[in-house]
Amino acid sequence: MDSSWDRQRGSELSAFIYSLFTLNYSLFLMAHRINFALSFLLLIVTVAFPLNGLAQKATFPESKTLQGPQNPRLGFVIHGGAGVIKKGSLTPAQEKEYRDKLAEAVLAGYKVLQEGQSGLDAVEIAIRILEDSPLFNAGKGAVFTHEGKNELDSSIMDGKTLAAGAVAGLRHVKNPITLARAVMEKSPHVMMIGDGAEKFAVEQKIELVDEKYFWTQPRWDSLQKVLKEEKEKSEGKKVSVNSASAEPSNRFGTVGAVALDKYGNLAAGTSTGGMTNKKYGRVGDAPIIGAGTYANNNTCAVSATGWGEFFIRLGVARDISALIEYRAMAIQQAADLVIKQKLQNLGGDGGIIAVDKFGNIGISFNSEGMYRAYINSDGKPVVEIYKD
Amino acid sequence: MDSSWDRQRGSELSAFIYSLFTLNYSLFLMAHRINFALSFLLLIVTVAFPLNGLAQKATFPESKTLQGPQNPRLGFVIHGGAGVIKKGSLTPAQEKEYRDKLAEAVLAGYKVLQEGQSGLDAVEIAIRILEDSPLFNAGKGAVFTHEGKNELDSSIMDGKTLAAGAVAGLRHVKNPITLARAVMEKSPHVMMIGDGAEKFAVEQKIELVDEKYFWTQPRWDSLQKVLKEEKEKSEGKKVSVNSASAEPSNRFGTVGAVALDKYGNLAAGTSTGGMTNKKYGRVGDAPIIGAGTYANNNTCAVSATGWGEFFIRLGVARDISALIEYRAMAIQQAADLVIKQKLQNLGGDGGIIAVDKFGNIGISFNSEGMYRAYINSDGKPVVEIYKD
Repeated sequence: MDSSWDRQRGSELSAFIYSLFTLNYSLFLMAHRINFALSFLLLIVTVAFPLNGLAQKATFPESKTLQGPQNPRLGFVIHGGAGVIKKGSLTPAQEKEYRDKLAEAVLAGYKVLQEGQSGLDAVEIAIRILEDSPLFNAGKGAVFTHEGKNELDSSIMDGKTLAAGAVAGLRHVKNPITLARAVMEKSPHVMMIGDGAEKFAVEQKIELVDEKYFWTQPRWDSLQKVLKEEKEKSEGKKVSVNSASAEPSNRFGTVGAVALDKYGNLAAGTSTGGMTNKKYGRVGDAPIIGAGTYANNNTCAVSATGWGEFFIRLGVARDISALIEYRAMAIQQAADLVIKQKLQNLGGDGGIIAVDKFGNIGISFNSEGMYRAYINSDGKPVVEIYKD
Repeated sequence: MDSSWDRQRGSELSAFIYSLFTLNYSLFLMAHRINFALSFLLLIVTVAFPLNGLAQKATFPESKTLQGPQNPRLGFVIHGGAGVIKKGSLTPAQEKEYRDKLAEAVLAGYKVLQEGQSGLDAVEIAIRILEDSPLFNAGKGAVFTHEGKNELDSSIMDGKTLAAGAVAGLRHVKNPITLARAVMEKSPHVMMIGDGAEKFAVEQKIELVDEKYFWTQPRWDSLQKVLKEEKEKSEGKKVSVNSASAEPSNRFGTVGAVALDKYGNLAAGTSTGGMTNKKYGRVGDAPIIGAGTYANNNTCAVSATGWGEFFIRLGVARDISALIEYRAMAIQQAADLVIKQKLQNLGGDGGIIAVDKFGNIGISFNSEGMYRAYINSDGKPVVEIYKD
């Protein structure tokens, strides 16, 4: 027995065993690290995408979170309605008219935000400009009912207090958004309708106008066209109450605004003339808090436009807020989930504008176009009409 | 050199090395398993308790998930309004009247569910019974407006399709819930108000009655009392539009029902006469889809009663549905979070009844009492009025 060989052999073996140990130990450590990394990834994945949400949370290829304006504490977006607005359907002169009016309104609202006024002020001021323009289906320019009347609806909400005001079935109020604000601020109520709401308007010295004020040639022509089509369709078969609502162009033009002011308060407002040829005192989503309008300082402010019945059934504005509150979704993602999936799946069309508590802007619509404007990171107004 | 020793020594070493391998391998496997188990636990924990939910998920010591009825596929709950209903404030005879009528209504609705009719049928039938009773503030028994009129609001929703119908400002419709259902099923609209809604009622051959039908002595006396108080309060100071709404007893009595039928479809409905001495065409939460009424087969059916303005601002019914949809909350927990925390914190009062897609019942209110009834696990009606 050669002990030196034995020692040598022994130390070679020891080294071998030692190397096996370290190899195994590093494998063990590596496995541990991989497992740790996987656990961490799993944590991220499960927090960001709860399992029961996978079905509804497909990818949003078009998602883009627009940045808030120059001052990150301010956010301002307006819309002038969603609908079938294909490129080329407006003459250059018409398009310029829309763009100029949207720019005027978004700048007017943003200006008061910069001056330190409230989000509610900005929302009201911008919406009044759109209501006073015959281009949009709100205030002057409202569409006609089946009976050839104009019935106006509006609502506003204060994200700080969750106070809200809504009015429906108005016929003489020049600026429904201002009456909605008065209901919110000067009454214990949230919603007033019809003659009662106008009686309140009188008491609050809100400007009333003769019904003739709302008459505009293009809207009158639209009604006559729809009535003619309805008559033709009904010849030989029963009149369908669907005829008016089935035509997308009869639903567009609602206006709205959302704001984040320097105090961190969110506000949202919406105003509409409803639907051409509407009957039976039909009310859409514009005056329904949670459907057409919602604001909550903990989440976001939303104003909607589109086929109102679907927005009511889904509670669109409230649902976007809930996705932010309960799922910690980004505003654009929440807006796209509700508009491009839920609304789309239910068969509705339209869109929303939104701003969250950080000033991030969300815009989403599943219609051909949506008149919209916001203030970009340079403090300049951006006006958009079509899909891209 | 003894080769046999060497072989022996070699094989001992081989065995030792082998044992080290297996030991390390088992350690590795064990570590892997522990890590896997931890990852799995982490998955469970993060799915069940999303991190951003911890803050709002305090315990609900009073939580109790009532079991659904005998047939686990059926669920039926009704309410006759929430308000200041202290023990002893009703005479035994009065209390018996309420209990008998609630039992009649809950059994009538449950019977049609057992017979295989839809949840919508059960909701409509039960609410019609409560509307026809002068005990509740809906249909006959509606409270009076400031002008001494009755203005009725109602809504209904189908959880299967999210179809909904709502009516407000009715003065001649005997059963507003039936008109709400007609709006849902026979028109493309969700909401109709005032004269227009009644015109639709005529076309749909819905029963109309003279305004006198709604006149009842106790409600008339309530109005006179409130008007007298208002006059006294206003002497020497400005009339407050708050006076009527500040008195809780003027807000209670709304009726509602929620059902899960044998087909797994949820339905909810609500009907009200509004608020004593209400002015300006005020509308509460009863006809607001998402506030007073909501149904969605994926979550639950809810009907609310209470201070309507707060229910609109919070979007109470829609919020309970959202907590189930996005937070996987149990129905009773979701109901308590919205009523006992959110509503309470905002200063509102009232309550809700709900049933989820499994037939679990949720009942929550922060008022002194709520007239309510449901079918217990023996298929028997349970009628409750007070807190306990």
